[in-house]
Amino acid sequence: MKIWQKNTDVNHLVESFTVGNDRVLDLQLAAADIVGSLAHTRMLHSIGLLSGDDLDAVQKELKQLYREVMAGEFTIEEGVEDVHSQVELLLTKRVGEAGKKIHSGRSRNDQVLVDLKLFFRTEIETLVKNTEVLFERLITLSEQYKHVLLPGYTHLQIAMPSSFGLWFGAYAESLVDDLELLQAAWKVCNKNPLGSAAGYGSSFPLNRQMTTDLLGFDSLNYNVVYAQMGRGKTERILAQGMSALAATLAKLSMDVCLYMNQNFGFITFPDHLTTGSSIMPHKKNPDVFELVRSRCNKIQALPNEIALMTTNLPSGYHRDLQLLKENLFPAFGSLNECLEITAFMLENIRIKEGILDDPKYDYLFSVEVVNDEVLSGVPFREAYRNIGLAIEAGTFKPRKEVNHTHEGSIGNLCNAEIRQAFNRVVAAYGFDRVNEALQALVA
Amino acid sequence: MKIWQKNTDVNHLVESFTVGNDRVLDLQLAAADIVGSLAHTRMLHSIGLLSGDDLDAVQKELKQLYREVMAGEFTIEEGVEDVHSQVELLLTKRVGEAGKKIHSGRSRNDQVLVDLKLFFRTEIETLVKNTEVLFERLITLSEQYKHVLLPGYTHLQIAMPSSFGLWFGAYAESLVDDLELLQAAWKVCNKNPLGSAAGYGSSFPLNRQMTTDLLGFDSLNYNVVYAQMGRGKTERILAQGMSALAATLAKLSMDVCLYMNQNFGFITFPDHLTTGSSIMPHKKNPDVFELVRSRCNKIQALPNEIALMTTNLPSGYHRDLQLLKENLFPAFGSLNECLEITAFMLENIRIKEGILDDPKYDYLFSVEVVNDEVLSGVPFREAYRNIGLAIEAGTFKPRKEVNHTHEGSIGNLCNAEIRQAFNRVVAAYGFDRVNEALQALVA
Amino acid sequence: MKIWQKNTDVNHLVESFTVGNDRVLDLQLAAADIVGSLAHTRMLHSIGLLSGDDLDAVQKELKQLYREVMAGEFTIEEGVEDVHSQVELLLTKRVGEAGKKIHSGRSRNDQVLVDLKLFFRTEIETLVKNTEVLFERLITLSEQYKHVLLPGYTHLQIAMPSSFGLWFGAYAESLVDDLELLQAAWKVCNKNPLGSAAGYGSSFPLNRQMTTDLLGFDSLNYNVVYAQMGRGKTERILAQGMSALAATLAKLSMDVCLYMNQNFGFITFPDHLTTGSSIMPHKKNPDVFELVRSRCNKIQALPNEIALMTTNLPSGYHRDLQLLKENLFPAFGSLNECLEITAFMLENIRIKEGILDDPKYDYLFSVEVVNDEVLSGVPFREAYRNIGLAIEAGTFKPRKEVNHTHEGSIGNLCNAEIRQAFNRVVAAYGFDRVNEALQALVA
Amino acid sequence: MKIWQKNTDVNHLVESFTVGNDRVLDLQLAAADIVGSLAHTRMLHSIGLLSGDDLDAVQKELKQLYREVMAGEFTIEEGVEDVHSQVELLLTKRVGEAGKKIHSGRSRNDQVLVDLKLFFRTEIETLVKNTEVLFERLITLSEQYKHVLLPGYTHLQIAMPSSFGLWFGAYAESLVDDLELLQAAWKVCNKNPLGSAAGYGSSFPLNRQMTTDLLGFDSLNYNVVYAQMGRGKTERILAQGMSALAATLAKLSMDVCLYMNQNFGFITFPDHLTTGSSIMPHKKNPDVFELVRSRCNKIQALPNEIALMTTNLPSGYHRDLQLLKENLFPAFGSLNECLEITAFMLENIRIKEGILDDPKYDYLFSVEVVNDEVLSGVPFREAYRNIGLAIEAGTFKPRKEVNHTHEGSIGNLCNAEIRQAFNRVVAAYGFDRVNEALQALVA
Repeated sequence: MKIWQKNTDVNHLVESFTVGNDRVLDLQLAAADIVGSLAHTRMLHSIGLLSGDDLDAVQKELKQLYREVMAGEFTIEEGVEDVHSQVELLLTKRVGEAGKKIHSGRSRNDQVLVDLKLFFRTEIETLVKNTEVLFERLITLSEQYKHVLLPGYTHLQIAMPSSFGLWFGAYAESLVDDLELLQAAWKVCNKNPLGSAAGYGSSFPLNRQMTTDLLGFDSLNYNVVYAQMGRGKTERILAQGMSALAATLAKLSMDVCLYMNQNFGFITFPDHLTTGSSIMPHKKNPDVFELVRSRCNKIQALPNEIALMTTNLPSGYHRDLQLLKENLFPAFGSLNECLEITAFMLENIRIKEGILDDPKYDYLFSVEVVNDEVLSGVPFREAYRNIGLAIEAGTFKPRKEVNHTHEGSIGNLCNAEIRQAFNRVVAAYGFDRVNEALQALVA
Repeated sequence: MKIWQKNTDVNHLVESFTVGNDRVLDLQLAAADIVGSLAHTRMLHSIGLLSGDDLDAVQKELKQLYREVMAGEFTIEEGVEDVHSQVELLLTKRVGEAGKKIHSGRSRNDQVLVDLKLFFRTEIETLVKNTEVLFERLITLSEQYKHVLLPGYTHLQIAMPSSFGLWFGAYAESLVDDLELLQAAWKVCNKNPLGSAAGYGSSFPLNRQMTTDLLGFDSLNYNVVYAQMGRGKTERILAQGMSALAATLAKLSMDVCLYMNQNFGFITFPDHLTTGSSIMPHKKNPDVFELVRSRCNKIQALPNEIALMTTNLPSGYHRDLQLLKENLFPAFGSLNECLEITAFMLENIRIKEGILDDPKYDYLFSVEVVNDEVLSGVPFREAYRNIGLAIEAGTFKPRKEVNHTHEGSIGNLCNAEIRQAFNRVVAAYGFDRVNEALQALVA
Repeated sequence: MKIWQKNTDVNHLVESFTVGNDRVLDLQLAAADIVGSLAHTRMLHSIGLLSGDDLDAVQKELKQLYREVMAGEFTIEEGVEDVHSQVELLLTKRVGEAGKKIHSGRSRNDQVLVDLKLFFRTEIETLVKNTEVLFERLITLSEQYKHVLLPGYTHLQIAMPSSFGLWFGAYAESLVDDLELLQAAWKVCNKNPLGSAAGYGSSFPLNRQMTTDLLGFDSLNYNVVYAQMGRGKTERILAQGMSALAATLAKLSMDVCLYMNQNFGFITFPDHLTTGSSIMPHKKNPDVFELVRSRCNKIQALPNEIALMTTNLPSGYHRDLQLLKENLFPAFGSLNECLEITAFMLENIRIKEGILDDPKYDYLFSVEVVNDEVLSGVPFREAYRNIGLAIEAGTFKPRKEVNHTHEGSIGNLCNAEIRQAFNRVVAAYGFDRVNEALQALVA
Repeated sequence: MKIWQKNTDVNHLVESFTVGNDRVLDLQLAAADIVGSLAHTRMLHSIGLLSGDDLDAVQKELKQLYREVMAGEFTIEEGVEDVHSQVELLLTKRVGEAGKKIHSGRSRNDQVLVDLKLFFRTEIETLVKNTEVLFERLITLSEQYKHVLLPGYTHLQIAMPSSFGLWFGAYAESLVDDLELLQAAWKVCNKNPLGSAAGYGSSFPLNRQMTTDLLGFDSLNYNVVYAQMGRGKTERILAQGMSALAATLAKLSMDVCLYMNQNFGFITFPDHLTTGSSIMPHKKNPDVFELVRSRCNKIQALPNEIALMTTNLPSGYHRDLQLLKENLFPAFGSLNECLEITAFMLENIRIKEGILDDPKYDYLFSVEVVNDEVLSGVPFREAYRNIGLAIEAGTFKPRKEVNHTHEGSIGNLCNAEIRQAFNRVVAAYGFDRVNEALQALVA
């Protein structure tokens, strides 16, 4: 039975096709849905659409439901279409008529919109927390191995000396910019669409600022047509934010797979963290990093998938948007797992020392020799030519000493500054303010 | 316990991360895996690597397992990594030592490769069968409504007269080209990778032509390095073939949603095939077509997703490729459901007659009037100008008669020729030959 | 002649293939390249790598070159590989040996990196300025037509009353969130990569903070490996920011094309802003909006294109990155033109009044009637059912009055709040601070 | 002056925005446009819409124009909108009134459709010819170096012995499947859309089978609505075909860059085919292959770009489709250049011999040792375990002999069979039949 059903039974085939996976996916929205209703009903009471008694009854049971969700005891029953219907059904069962009144002044459209934004906020916070753990691991490794040199490559050709300090630190700093992009998604999420109803507002004198404050939103999606337009757009921007983190992890994984390759042999992992082959008894494969790479590349494809599913739809709600849950919801779990397992693996990484002692890396030092000439007065372009000719003649002699001192170089990693930048970005999200508001609602 | 495990236990976190959803997805490969082993073991016997007794025992049990799979009784046990291990495990349990010998001369890599190709062939055949049903429905509707006119639009502006005959017929003909592209995927799938082992062949004197014939493949992926390179590539090409069908369905759905819109009002569906709104009691929404559109646009994103997950991987197997199952396997079910429900919905479509009687469509006939002048001797560019000025002056008079006779026009739909083209494409797949080979293997 | 050439001539085919379109595209980087060198040389002087006389000579000529670029008099000569070589060549021609010294302490890699970031900052500022113009046009139209009602659609089905005030205002507010995302790109661009050399730093005691300040950057890309990693990543994030604006314009264009369609007929444009057909003399086509939509959808594809070209490249520079110019540079011009022509077209839009007088829109008011019952005490779910049955029985009577008062609804558009939000986002870019720094450099 | 212009001048801004780059891009369509008109006018004569004298005059001048195009003397004049207008303009100038009659019975829509299909056929043929050259180069190298061994990798870890014979041959065989996919695009292109007019046919008694035969098309796009629907769809399918070739080239390039890397060191190229660095005098970079990879990855993004620009457009022409020329036309040139330069570079490749003598590759032979035990009677799973334990104990001894004999393995490359398969695919295009028809038209 659908809440919008009148006299005609909907064809069973149509019903199962349209409901799709919603009953499974919606479980993740249960907490958000209840929180949204807690705010909505307090607002309904404030404008006289819900009596004090009804409010009390409804609030009490919604908070009880919230606890059940948190305890993992909430399910969507067979035959109930989605989480919104399930919550309303339980409420009506437990508090009677009052339960039927909570849908006044909203539509399923803005209810889903606000649920999604509340859910996305939670997911973003989890992503940021997991990113912090990985960031700390990377900075720690960068400091720990700052004196261990590594060949630096350009065009995959031996170029100049690098170091494990630089390598780990680079990925740490990459996360700073990633969180900057994710923060744009956070800001887009942190505006209240509730009260936009089906995308055209309501004739009830709703107080949208009140629900905005109660739910800890930064401000409103003012225009109700725009509030509805946010569906699909929010998902795309969020997927773009996630794709930044994913791109960093995928690149790191590519480096790891390369450096574990026996021709490089720069790093290894303990046997119990690698996997074998069904026919080659000697194999110790970096499957974890291959799968992080693959999962993250899949996440990188997500914004485009969402774009293809929403492009050229005129304004106003379309059922197409429902399917975006299928794309985005599993991506949160997948990206979080990638962040976690990468941090875990890096905890166990083993670094090879003395790599640059191998004479095959001698040319790494050609720039140093050029620079020495420059410092002794030779114009750069001439010094460059001199060393080039020496290399071709086979008379080049490296000076295997690296003395880099400027900001961000081997000898001066600036990890403290990078950490400061990271902390500044994280602080700007303002998770505490949001969480306080939510705590006050469910308490 | 992994089949490649030696002394070291793999970390639990690593294990669950790397196994992923394989145990669920692999169930769909069970029949293909058994069929592959039926062929492989007969070949092993032919080159003296399996005794006659062992072969008999193994064949008997594999056929029994095949029947269990067909009956839906096959599962992958907790703790077993994938379908290949499960089949080998059961076999060894039932026939003893002989079961352990069937992995000779192959690697899990070529085993997965051949399983996927066998599985893809089956899925392609199902897609083609479902496409045939939809094709017939469209041709039937095209004939049924060939005399009912419809406005034709260009730039979404009223252009020239069209008809339901043309509209349905166009989507039927679209499916012909779609199956042409899918057939390229079929051809790529219909080559045998078995015997390529881990991508570098085997020192056993395998007879790859024999398994090719037994499994009904058209020919071999000869070069073993290329056979392995087919992983990812096959999936991308197959997804491209599917995206052609998806694009046709998505476009049809967009038309349907537009034509159901009250401003157009060209078609309707019975109430029990539409859905309602939680706040608007008058709504009869075309959710089925919105979801067909959305699912099909998701499928259109699939080739790109696969490209992103495989691009810039050097040759040789990478674990990344495992995740492609997650993308592609559910897409088969989804696309088949879309084909089925579209055919079902069209069975119930209701067409509005007399649409062009409305004077707002008068301009549709301006080209006919231009052509009348041309036939009476006025050069085309002048006739065009004359009618244009008449329209601007408000003196234009339509002649609401359509007399189109050339191939593919309103009065001469060529549906018979289109059906012939369709049948020719379907016949070129050669499903019968393939199925006969498979039947002979499992009998 | 290449600056990196030694004794061997590079094959002509290889040369023309590798140079590609760089000589054309690089022209757009000329100003940035000179500005970068102005800062770099002052820093070189400060650390003793350039004498006072050399600095004066070089600064004077670089400023002269800058004026030539601004006057459109700068070209890249036949046979010169790129803009960096051209600037250095001219400089050396004009000031002699001193010109050869300016490449000390940097590589072409970080030179391109900083050029791109300077160029992107300029382009972002232009985009924001053009967005402001469009924003103002939309807000003005929203206010001007706030009393003109429009049907609101969901599922493309008639849903509830909307208004031109809401419609224009929604797209205005959409631009606020778009600039939020673009701002993340701005922040990523606004960090100084200069001094990272080929991605592994330099043995010279560079003062990277000094160039950061001189060029008006907010801070540094500290880690030199990360600075290089920014290539490709910056482009992708910037393309994502642009895709947000593009998605808004594309959606608006789809609405416009639909509303201009004769079945809707909500808006028109003067004849001289539409285009005709080669065979249909009555046509007045919305080509501008179709092309805005198409261009913007192309821009929406850009982040994915960049992802495909950069995915799975290990860290360190790769020549692949050069081609990103080809994707991104033309997109700036295209998006700016779309912003401009959309604003221009909207200046000329003509709105139909009294649309809702047509009885085909009566059901738009069903929710209002439900809400009236609710306000008179009927529980929402019952009122909904009552009106639904009245509609099915044909006894429904609309009350064609819209009294929406809450934030963001027809009667209370909150355009002032939306403008405030827009201004807040624009202010946060901090263009003035950046431009002051640049002015000081070139003065 | 536009051919569809009546009294109103189109705004200059609108004109320049809508014309876009068409005047440049259209030059590539000139030959196809003339060929299409040669067929169309013969058909017009056959149905009495063009007198014998007019036909003669028009045919003579069109053939003259065709020769001018072939000689590179054709241009689109300033102020002329596109190639179609230019051809008609010149024709009318040279033969008078008769020139104005050739547009009878067609619209610019089907004129563009047929031009594109004719043009695409030519481009596909060029791609196939260039692919043949590369194929032959790869097969030749495979034969030449069939005895030179190479480490084979899985998971980028040392796996089993491979060979240059296998490596080159794999990419040759890859091209077979690529041409299979491109052939599906060829088939979709090789159907005649002429006569579909603006997508709704014509009241003239056109003989579409006649133009189909004259232009050498395989058959018709029968349904006129579908003929128009082919725009965008044809481009997408063609881009998918091109992306297959591109993926093969990109993967080969990745391998080349890796194998040129000093840690691998398997191949080199002469100095004059590599490029240098502005600061590192020792560099010899594989820029050609990096740019092939990058260009090809850009081409891999093309189908998705087209999908994004066409998705969710209802049936009927939209101006959006014009922009697809911008995406697709340059891709032909780019892909052809990649095919050509790859073949050229491979002509100059230098192979390292004796790679596997290095003991770091000893484990490559572990499977051979397992297989030896199997052949001596040990069950595979036990032999695998034995060797695995020997490796862990450091007692493993390789037997550095490779004796692979089965189809497609190191000792039996099956290059003859692969060439046969290649030739079979190329023959199935049927270029000769098409070219004969075209020759007859222009002679």
